[in-house]
Amino acid sequence: MDKVWLHQLCWTEVKDYLHLADTIILPVGSIEQHGEHLPLGTDTMVAEALAEAVARQTGVLVGPTVSCGWSPHHMILPGTVTIRPEVLIEYLYDVISSLAEHGFKRFLLLNGHRLVNISWMQIAAERAKRQLHIKVYLADPGFLSKEFARNQGLELIGHADEIESSHMLYLWPGMVDMSRARDFVPQRKEYLHVDPRVGNDVLCYVPSCPEEMRQSVEEGAGVSGSPTRSDPETGKAYHDWVVDRLVSIVNDLKHS
Amino acid sequence: MDKVWLHQLCWTEVKDYLHLADTIILPVGSIEQHGEHLPLGTDTMVAEALAEAVARQTGVLVGPTVSCGWSPHHMILPGTVTIRPEVLIEYLYDVISSLAEHGFKRFLLLNGHRLVNISWMQIAAERAKRQLHIKVYLADPGFLSKEFARNQGLELIGHADEIESSHMLYLWPGMVDMSRARDFVPQRKEYLHVDPRVGNDVLCYVPSCPEEMRQSVEEGAGVSGSPTRSDPETGKAYHDWVVDRLVSIVNDLKHS
Amino acid sequence: MDKVWLHQLCWTEVKDYLHLADTIILPVGSIEQHGEHLPLGTDTMVAEALAEAVARQTGVLVGPTVSCGWSPHHMILPGTVTIRPEVLIEYLYDVISSLAEHGFKRFLLLNGHRLVNISWMQIAAERAKRQLHIKVYLADPGFLSKEFARNQGLELIGHADEIESSHMLYLWPGMVDMSRARDFVPQRKEYLHVDPRVGNDVLCYVPSCPEEMRQSVEEGAGVSGSPTRSDPETGKAYHDWVVDRLVSIVNDLKHS
Amino acid sequence: MDKVWLHQLCWTEVKDYLHLADTIILPVGSIEQHGEHLPLGTDTMVAEALAEAVARQTGVLVGPTVSCGWSPHHMILPGTVTIRPEVLIEYLYDVISSLAEHGFKRFLLLNGHRLVNISWMQIAAERAKRQLHIKVYLADPGFLSKEFARNQGLELIGHADEIESSHMLYLWPGMVDMSRARDFVPQRKEYLHVDPRVGNDVLCYVPSCPEEMRQSVEEGAGVSGSPTRSDPETGKAYHDWVVDRLVSIVNDLKHS
Amino acid sequence: MDKVWLHQLCWTEVKDYLHLADTIILPVGSIEQHGEHLPLGTDTMVAEALAEAVARQTGVLVGPTVSCGWSPHHMILPGTVTIRPEVLIEYLYDVISSLAEHGFKRFLLLNGHRLVNISWMQIAAERAKRQLHIKVYLADPGFLSKEFARNQGLELIGHADEIESSHMLYLWPGMVDMSRARDFVPQRKEYLHVDPRVGNDVLCYVPSCPEEMRQSVEEGAGVSGSPTRSDPETGKAYHDWVVDRLVSIVNDLKHS
Amino acid sequence: MDKVWLHQLCWTEVKDYLHLADTIILPVGSIEQHGEHLPLGTDTMVAEALAEAVARQTGVLVGPTVSCGWSPHHMILPGTVTIRPEVLIEYLYDVISSLAEHGFKRFLLLNGHRLVNISWMQIAAERAKRQLHIKVYLADPGFLSKEFARNQGLELIGHADEIESSHMLYLWPGMVDMSRARDFVPQRKEYLHVDPRVGNDVLCYVPSCPEEMRQSVEEGAGVSGSPTRSDPETGKAYHDWVVDRLVSIVNDLKHS
Repeated sequence: MDKVWLHQLCWTEVKDYLHLADTIILPVGSIEQHGEHLPLGTDTMVAEALAEAVARQTGVLVGPTVSCGWSPHHMILPGTVTIRPEVLIEYLYDVISSLAEHGFKRFLLLNGHRLVNISWMQIAAERAKRQLHIKVYLADPGFLSKEFARNQGLELIGHADEIESSHMLYLWPGMVDMSRARDFVPQRKEYLHVDPRVGNDVLCYVPSCPEEMRQSVEEGAGVSGSPTRSDPETGKAYHDWVVDRLVSIVNDLKHS
Repeated sequence: MDKVWLHQLCWTEVKDYLHLADTIILPVGSIEQHGEHLPLGTDTMVAEALAEAVARQTGVLVGPTVSCGWSPHHMILPGTVTIRPEVLIEYLYDVISSLAEHGFKRFLLLNGHRLVNISWMQIAAERAKRQLHIKVYLADPGFLSKEFARNQGLELIGHADEIESSHMLYLWPGMVDMSRARDFVPQRKEYLHVDPRVGNDVLCYVPSCPEEMRQSVEEGAGVSGSPTRSDPETGKAYHDWVVDRLVSIVNDLKHS
Repeated sequence: MDKVWLHQLCWTEVKDYLHLADTIILPVGSIEQHGEHLPLGTDTMVAEALAEAVARQTGVLVGPTVSCGWSPHHMILPGTVTIRPEVLIEYLYDVISSLAEHGFKRFLLLNGHRLVNISWMQIAAERAKRQLHIKVYLADPGFLSKEFARNQGLELIGHADEIESSHMLYLWPGMVDMSRARDFVPQRKEYLHVDPRVGNDVLCYVPSCPEEMRQSVEEGAGVSGSPTRSDPETGKAYHDWVVDRLVSIVNDLKHS
Repeated sequence: MDKVWLHQLCWTEVKDYLHLADTIILPVGSIEQHGEHLPLGTDTMVAEALAEAVARQTGVLVGPTVSCGWSPHHMILPGTVTIRPEVLIEYLYDVISSLAEHGFKRFLLLNGHRLVNISWMQIAAERAKRQLHIKVYLADPGFLSKEFARNQGLELIGHADEIESSHMLYLWPGMVDMSRARDFVPQRKEYLHVDPRVGNDVLCYVPSCPEEMRQSVEEGAGVSGSPTRSDPETGKAYHDWVVDRLVSIVNDLKHS
Repeated sequence: MDKVWLHQLCWTEVKDYLHLADTIILPVGSIEQHGEHLPLGTDTMVAEALAEAVARQTGVLVGPTVSCGWSPHHMILPGTVTIRPEVLIEYLYDVISSLAEHGFKRFLLLNGHRLVNISWMQIAAERAKRQLHIKVYLADPGFLSKEFARNQGLELIGHADEIESSHMLYLWPGMVDMSRARDFVPQRKEYLHVDPRVGNDVLCYVPSCPEEMRQSVEEGAGVSGSPTRSDPETGKAYHDWVVDRLVSIVNDLKHS
Repeated sequence: MDKVWLHQLCWTEVKDYLHLADTIILPVGSIEQHGEHLPLGTDTMVAEALAEAVARQTGVLVGPTVSCGWSPHHMILPGTVTIRPEVLIEYLYDVISSLAEHGFKRFLLLNGHRLVNISWMQIAAERAKRQLHIKVYLADPGFLSKEFARNQGLELIGHADEIESSHMLYLWPGMVDMSRARDFVPQRKEYLHVDPRVGNDVLCYVPSCPEEMRQSVEEGAGVSGSPTRSDPETGKAYHDWVVDRLVSIVNDLKHS
């Protein structure tokens, strides 16, 4: 199949697809500041790139992207767009339920925004599974690359960091301005970590409020991590790793 | 400025933009069936194409697209996605209010979905203007091409019709399969018209329910109108006409 | 039938009515300033007068009036009452769904408040049609008198204007104080028109915010138009024209 | 002052009123079955009649009536309209807050629907008092005539009963068909009473569900009580008693 | 049965219970200031004590307590927790609907917070009865001890008053600090009473706003009434009276 | 301080506390099936026991418990109560905002329900931090005992498993019926794990729907794990470990 995006098909093509298959991938991202070297749409762009790669390998359709997410903590820098999680739950639910009404029965929600989107996506996904009698998996690259990051000795997940910048360098080098990449690793608090790879005892994540963001903004220009360590080869290896896991998950989903 | 899309900028570029300007265009579309010859994303694609063209001529940014709209009447054919208008009001309000918080003060909401999205967009726009102390204009190509359509003798607005198909033929010829275009002009009821050009006395529009759509679906495969009459030249002329009006409106908005 | 208003009947009379018919008219109005010469309840009063006249000619019942509407733009002058459109959608939906539960199947929503109420009424009407499996038509005198106004050379629709004042002079002369009628025709902006008769390219309507209303309030005392041109004969002709169209629409609705 | 209804005034008259006074009465009623002898609008009509009488004696304005109320228990008979209490809370809140924005500071909510409307009116009234910094009193004729009913030996409050029918016979004799009045006094359950006059230990009121209404509907045609005992003289004495109390309450409110 | 609280059982014990019975008591209370001599949890503690006593006498289960209620008027003193009534309606509805899904069919809602909680409990109870096809009774000790209070010559219901303090002295003497009990009987306004025992004409209750509470707080330290008149014997007699009524009500509920 | 629970204090004691401190712990639990050997209230009971122990060591108050949580996946077995997450967000927000209004500025939300409650607690916590300008930490024993569980070689987190049963055996031995404990370890799916200790690549958690629970219910009677391996000594060591971490976190919170 050549066209993998739902919006590129006409309804008869969707009808044909549904005779053979009932799986779809929904990318979810954000529009939020990513330092001075990455574009605001980074999360959405990586979700879409991963989804499209998985779709090409599995023959599965990719549905409409939810391109804005929950980003209250990044409102401190201009261009960030944040939607209330209560609204996103309903928006995503309606996307899923529209597709379920046509016969889609297996959904892979693919989050490009790491930890922050997961809570409201869980709530939408549970309601959709229960009320619509469908399967919903919820995937996030940060959780699907724990082994890779550990094996490669990558730094812990931050924001606009080594992993994210490497990924973007591989995917869209023209959108990254490495000359403006600035490293800033805030002093870690003992129980506050956002990388799921961390084996220590941790508190659960709550998005920061503006006061809590100030230091990272003033000293790191919105970065938390070491983007100067990034390179496209790491980005490619990371991308391939995550796509590989997602392909395996889609195949599991199709037969579950 | 080369990059006109918000998501392509990094936050410092938005900051720079806001030193000089405070206007932004938000495209709003839909994912809904458009007959057998046009893709589901037609409304979103034309909203984005018009917005981008206007942005290039005016130097104004284009913000995140609302790519799914209110399409309950097209749920009868597969692939259509409809979001409850109550949810869309809140979603669009949050997009606008996030941007207003950063200093954007003038918004052009650009609808590619014709009549159906307008009601919920009006409600979101009014609340945003009043609560956020900003300017919001609401534009729709159907309302901005009344003179053009009359002058050109184009058929009345339907769905996946002469105008829409011509526009797509001009913008994305590879996405249109004219070999599958099928004409179907349903018998008009005396007071039921959706084209704002009509000078007769009319009832107000209410989206059709599934039963009301059945005939147009069965006889017209989702089309209401004469797409076979479409051609890229008409599409270009229409596009230029609407862009011209929008440029004039953006200039008015900037100085209002 | 002598009593046409639902609230005047006892339940056995409604039961009898439902053995023979299933159509009902719901007037919707507003409480908002109408200049110094017209009462705040003008919109509700004209909706009720039209509904009652149509009911008498067609034998159809008139249901409970929604007497407050969406009037945020007129809150700048005292006495105006505005209900959030989100609330009005639910209120009107509950009125319709209560009546549908008893067996009413055909609804004519009759708006006396012109453009402003239409958006939320469309949303309520669509949901009601789809979820309750009923017919709903949405009528507005401004849209049903385009031909009349053009034929008579009446000024474009404004607020508390020639048409509205003439209509009130005919219906309730004792409620109109022509000695205080004041003309004020704000300078029209190129793409901003509220009269559906206008053949030009237009933006879509968004209710004004307080700042936008200030000039019309200060110079026109709440009027936009030329009420001094009004007379009861024009009001009668307009009333009869609209009633005539509505009777025809009710007859169509009954047999749809 | 001749005109006591808000909707009959123009905005300059409201402005003049607000220079001298800041009190307003809001009638709240219902559209629900009232047996075979009383009209569906009984509750609204008595609320409006009481409010108008009080307004004439005190010079206080009467605002827009909330004409539909919460009547789930009477949906078993045709013509009843019930609005969800969650919606009514918001609707009434918006009416109050619109008026408070213009300078009204003292509100008398006057319920004609007895026990059923009180719960949602309490919630709206408390929020309005706290958020808008206004005074709100909540009056109900059933609670304001405990002494009268006891003194006169009237039967306990039911529905479409002696008191209600007498009141309507006095106010609108042409709307009452005593030839169809039918007595039905359901067997009282020990702890279930709706008359606030009852001195016994009682459970709190919860509106009946359809199954609980069936007997009263089948045996009493919607009546609970003895309407055949009603007469206009009792209605007048009751009306005068309640008006007298309300006048005293309005005077207290004006000086509180 | 030894364990009467739902949370103390394991699911198999609930399953066994449901083979024999389908009744459950849900206590509802508040966390709000109760003067200087009673704990903030007084309302919840008395609701739980009454519920447990009734459960032991009837063999009926006691479900999860709603321990916070609607207390906007007591927010003027620290420690008070108030939940919006709109939220409490949904919370209680979900508790009931979860239990109804398992087979519970008869619910006694037992309020320890007197008048204030009743309005939102009525709304939740009505919806639950109608949508879930269950029985719901709503009991409040203030309404179930009208005869007792009259017979005993107890003062009218206030707050942290003779009855409440006596009840706590009987139930939890260690939680009452009578050395800090302070009497304060605010001057009663003619139509404003909260005791359902009052035979006079009254307005309906609306919770006070902060300004209205100031005097009682400054002069009475949060008390309205005469707690110094309280004693454990009165508390015991009151407790037994209310339990006796509730047992009779539960028995009625079980056979209704 | 002897009394650590908010509801046991009177308002003057809270006032005194707030002169010296502004930290409070809010336990959050659930009422849901925990196999045949543990009570439905297990999650709430452990949250309260941990909170109370931490309060005693740190002198910090414990606020009202949210005793019902989000448990849709356990509705398959009787006694489980689930509240919609949208409702829990508002309920918890109101608890926090009431306390913040009195001067509490530092909140430790302590979840006893493991993964399932965390998503809605995150949403409530973020809104509270941002809108109320307070500090909120979100703690969960499963995340705070990763090191302990690894060191001790405890099995992976399931439900009513080794850790939970050991904890209950230590805290409330009389509430555990080890004679009915039954082991059931469902076959793990490759990417589906709920224990945050797992180092592998994982999908994100979405609560199971009824169909997905059936096997664990039928074969494991609601257990997922090996409760027969539990013992009170492990429970005590686990309890002390988590309390130790929480004490350290509270001390950090007090000085943050």
